[in-house]
Amino acid sequence: MTIVPICPAPVMQHETVQMAHGAGGRLSQTLMQRVFMPHLHNAFLDLLDDQAKLDLPPGRTAFSTDTYVVSPVFFPGGNIGELAVNGTVNDLAVGGAKPLYLSAGFVLEEGFSLAELEDIVKSMAEAARRAGVMIVTGDTKVVGKGQCDRIFINTSGIGIIREGVNLSCRNLKVSDSIILSGTVGDHGMAIMTSREGLSFQSRITSDCAALNGMISTILDEVPFAIHAMRDPTRGGVAATLNELASSSSVGIEIHETTIPVKPDVRGACELLGIDPLHVANEGKLVVAVAAGDAERVLEVMRALDLGRDAVIIGSVVDDHPGMVVMRTVYGSRRIIDLPLGEQLPRIC
Amino acid sequence: MTIVPICPAPVMQHETVQMAHGAGGRLSQTLMQRVFMPHLHNAFLDLLDDQAKLDLPPGRTAFSTDTYVVSPVFFPGGNIGELAVNGTVNDLAVGGAKPLYLSAGFVLEEGFSLAELEDIVKSMAEAARRAGVMIVTGDTKVVGKGQCDRIFINTSGIGIIREGVNLSCRNLKVSDSIILSGTVGDHGMAIMTSREGLSFQSRITSDCAALNGMISTILDEVPFAIHAMRDPTRGGVAATLNELASSSSVGIEIHETTIPVKPDVRGACELLGIDPLHVANEGKLVVAVAAGDAERVLEVMRALDLGRDAVIIGSVVDDHPGMVVMRTVYGSRRIIDLPLGEQLPRIC
Repeated sequence: MTIVPICPAPVMQHETVQMAHGAGGRLSQTLMQRVFMPHLHNAFLDLLDDQAKLDLPPGRTAFSTDTYVVSPVFFPGGNIGELAVNGTVNDLAVGGAKPLYLSAGFVLEEGFSLAELEDIVKSMAEAARRAGVMIVTGDTKVVGKGQCDRIFINTSGIGIIREGVNLSCRNLKVSDSIILSGTVGDHGMAIMTSREGLSFQSRITSDCAALNGMISTILDEVPFAIHAMRDPTRGGVAATLNELASSSSVGIEIHETTIPVKPDVRGACELLGIDPLHVANEGKLVVAVAAGDAERVLEVMRALDLGRDAVIIGSVVDDHPGMVVMRTVYGSRRIIDLPLGEQLPRIC
Repeated sequence: MTIVPICPAPVMQHETVQMAHGAGGRLSQTLMQRVFMPHLHNAFLDLLDDQAKLDLPPGRTAFSTDTYVVSPVFFPGGNIGELAVNGTVNDLAVGGAKPLYLSAGFVLEEGFSLAELEDIVKSMAEAARRAGVMIVTGDTKVVGKGQCDRIFINTSGIGIIREGVNLSCRNLKVSDSIILSGTVGDHGMAIMTSREGLSFQSRITSDCAALNGMISTILDEVPFAIHAMRDPTRGGVAATLNELASSSSVGIEIHETTIPVKPDVRGACELLGIDPLHVANEGKLVVAVAAGDAERVLEVMRALDLGRDAVIIGSVVDDHPGMVVMRTVYGSRRIIDLPLGEQLPRIC
């Protein structure tokens, strides 16, 4: 379908999503023309074929997907659109891939504000530009009022894995150092404290950011040193470390005193009885690296904005395989378990 | 994360989705182990990394996405899972690609039946097997009761485009024949008549099917003859023809007498005042082909189960560019417009 190249009427504050916007008819075209294309248009998307046709560079292809259902849709430090782009970019990058192309699938609730939708789409465009990726194919569905909560966004992504790089959560070796790129819990507590009925008067903001730049620099500067990377999102650093330990059948020991937590985040966590290690992050990186290379990786990370607070939080041990143990501030040892379930629903 | 290779407890009828199933903790693991992995497991998915690492064969890559929100979730002739696999397979195939890999992103409503979820996942596995694709990466989110309508599924897909094949809705040439692979309106009317409060006692079933086999055979047998293909889903054949006409800046003329419609579907459409050309299909193909090759293509299609009722419904004309005109049974001419909006919400 060709989008007629006229200057579209701007979206009015009071306009809302109608069922017909998702029906594949004339109003679907209007939605594309007025809300999506002004911000997202590019050589692939402009064709509006059912599929984007891409010439991928050589190399193994990484493929990842995530649906974002965060509530509230706008939160301190970001919104669902920015999160949807950065989240999938990060899922590709932690596999050693250079993220290239994203898809975007929207589910919109009838009555959702078109002005808010446009703000979200604009954020996606900006986040994609910052991360150096293109949104090349998409889909929009509209469901009736009360059949979804405002807006859900799926992004799937394609990236090309660096030659010779082999990152996997199965690669941890005993004595590896575990590096964390910065403070924990910012995203989850930003969401939590911005929910209705929970007002902390805090200035906690989400750490939502694309990690592919930092990861690329690490892989440039210290090639082949990294064994595994993960972004500790749902379930927090605790879940990530448990996954690494379990997948590689090794133990991990971390030191509580080394874990960076912002004072506001720590305060909110204490008030709510939540362990910051279980809280989601959206711009942090956990790196497992051979001990001998750890200082060099740390140096590279600390030179970057996103890795300024990077720190070695522990190491891989041959004790208690599959288990994560923390040396507490009191010198005792505590098992850091996978959380059973939900402390903070819909944080991403 | 490693899925422990034990025989998981079967899902009980009364068990339902809990918020904790989407939290990335222990219950998320249980959901993977008990519901998803028994049906979907393969060498890529088993790794449970944040991304699948694929060795794609040479060629241009097609990339497509669609979120499925069909209601009811189970309908005559299929369910949302089967639809989600076939729909994205078809979006890749109509671009001339061999579909290879899919992602699957689930949004589940708290309280949704785990037994029904398992039925859906099983259907996805079967549909993927039939279409010759693998589901290699996935994601599950759970939202609270009333925050989505039971289950939404996004599938994104990757395929490799055949060497030398260049299908695009911009490629139509004057005098091309337009072929339709079978009866129209089956899927949309199956959904419509199965909705609560609308009982037709009909036996209308969805035509939900993967088209990649048929498309591959056409491209094998009549290489380079096809200018464009589309699967007429949302908005029906009317929307598809309008997109083709508009994108290629040509006119299309079709003949009402040639359009195959099943008697039950025609009856239901007449009762509801709906034009079958505007009703969604999920296993039909519209092909634009040079007139000289049309009979050969038709022959190839008719030899296949899915193309048994294939027929030439019209041709590309140099009159009325961007517009679709139908010669009616009475010999008069009628403009087949893009529907404004929604006749049948949530049909896919």
